[in-house]
Amino acid sequence: MSGAGNFKNCGSVLVTGANRGLGLQIVDSLATGGFSPGTIIATARSADSSQKLQELAAKYPNIHIISLDVVSQQSIDQCVEEVGKLLQDEGLNCLINNAGIKMLGDFNTVTAEKMIENFHTNAVAPLMITKAFLPLLKKAASRGGAGGPRSMGIQRAAVINMSSLLGSVELNWGERADTFKWYPYRTSKSALNMVGRCMAVDLEPDGILCIMIHPGWVRTDMGGSEAPLSAEESVSSILSVIGGLTEKDHGSFLNFTGEVLPW
Amino acid sequence: MSGAGNFKNCGSVLVTGANRGLGLQIVDSLATGGFSPGTIIATARSADSSQKLQELAAKYPNIHIISLDVVSQQSIDQCVEEVGKLLQDEGLNCLINNAGIKMLGDFNTVTAEKMIENFHTNAVAPLMITKAFLPLLKKAASRGGAGGPRSMGIQRAAVINMSSLLGSVELNWGERADTFKWYPYRTSKSALNMVGRCMAVDLEPDGILCIMIHPGWVRTDMGGSEAPLSAEESVSSILSVIGGLTEKDHGSFLNFTGEVLPW
Repeated sequence: MSGAGNFKNCGSVLVTGANRGLGLQIVDSLATGGFSPGTIIATARSADSSQKLQELAAKYPNIHIISLDVVSQQSIDQCVEEVGKLLQDEGLNCLINNAGIKMLGDFNTVTAEKMIENFHTNAVAPLMITKAFLPLLKKAASRGGAGGPRSMGIQRAAVINMSSLLGSVELNWGERADTFKWYPYRTSKSALNMVGRCMAVDLEPDGILCIMIHPGWVRTDMGGSEAPLSAEESVSSILSVIGGLTEKDHGSFLNFTGEVLPW
Repeated sequence: MSGAGNFKNCGSVLVTGANRGLGLQIVDSLATGGFSPGTIIATARSADSSQKLQELAAKYPNIHIISLDVVSQQSIDQCVEEVGKLLQDEGLNCLINNAGIKMLGDFNTVTAEKMIENFHTNAVAPLMITKAFLPLLKKAASRGGAGGPRSMGIQRAAVINMSSLLGSVELNWGERADTFKWYPYRTSKSALNMVGRCMAVDLEPDGILCIMIHPGWVRTDMGGSEAPLSAEESVSSILSVIGGLTEKDHGSFLNFTGEVLPW
């Protein structure tokens, strides 16, 4: 299977945190899938350190590696400038805010510093990055695409925020709550859900779709070796969901299987 | 009417941000109500600057003013020490995390700094304060109280987090979303809801109740002059809800009128 979803009509995708884990797998699956987008921009703080990403980029000329430290405004601005030169009037069709960190800390060990650091990377950075890429997203959205000018989806422009089931306040109860007592991580993902919901409201007039998605529990550095899903399985499903997004999904929190999750 | 709810069996209440607005009104209503708690601790960063609070404390000897800067761990630790000396083996029955700030910022004007500052004060501070007061809350909870040792409520120990309807991701859609595009404030309150939900899970084994409450839209410095509710009306209703809390409310997000709100 291609694992790339329906990216046939998507000119460009930018993925943050593409040096490893899900971000790297997204780049891999997009590049090797049957319907690869025209341009794949893989960003990472230290892209040089990922041999796998370098190898992919050497093999697939539509992959462009650009440096981006998501918590540095200077780095964000520089990245936007480089991406702008690359995409020019085509604009950016799909921004995947995937970069994230998992700070542990239960009620006894959590500190203010951990809370703020995790919040900055997981909730504030996607906001600042989306703000900075707005002109390029608007360009892509204004070009229309299949389905008419009023439709929404990756054929126009979309912002995909990688959230987590652990960010669901509703589901943080009973058995689930007893398992993962990670104050900084959970709080950062709840905050991201609100940030994404706010952005959905503000991006709608420009025809830019915005959603939050839970990737499942995946065997990555973050998910650990006991997770039930491989990165390939998770990303195959995520890309299928992203490829099929329409205006009815706008502003929602989706599971990697496509179902709506509670906030 | 008393406006003090049923605080007859509540030995002590601590309110943060008590120099003005809802915090000041809570102290006022508790002190002047028919069933005033034994000890009312009013904390504020600059308690000296509130003439009204000083006047209340001069009139009602059960009001104790203690300095607390909610974003300073040193200040929190010092406050806990002073409160501990005051309450000793009785412990603290009711902690009201009321202190909060409202940072404005729409999609265009929001900055990372505003996001982090509002998050720190509104979401991280209640966590660090509750952690610090845990020994005093546990003391109060372990003393039992009316209703048997397994019951929950302010007769044992409770943590009340002043949240906001604007922190509901679910309700941030349609007409409501168009009115208040305050990224830092909304995000901080969503984050507080997750923090409070995590704390509810962790405080339950000690019999300490924990909820989030929306005070309504109130005519305070924060709410503005066009708000429909007076501080007296809001606080009268809030204290009535707090006074009637039981284990069935544990971990929930309540309106000032007592109904459950969506996350």
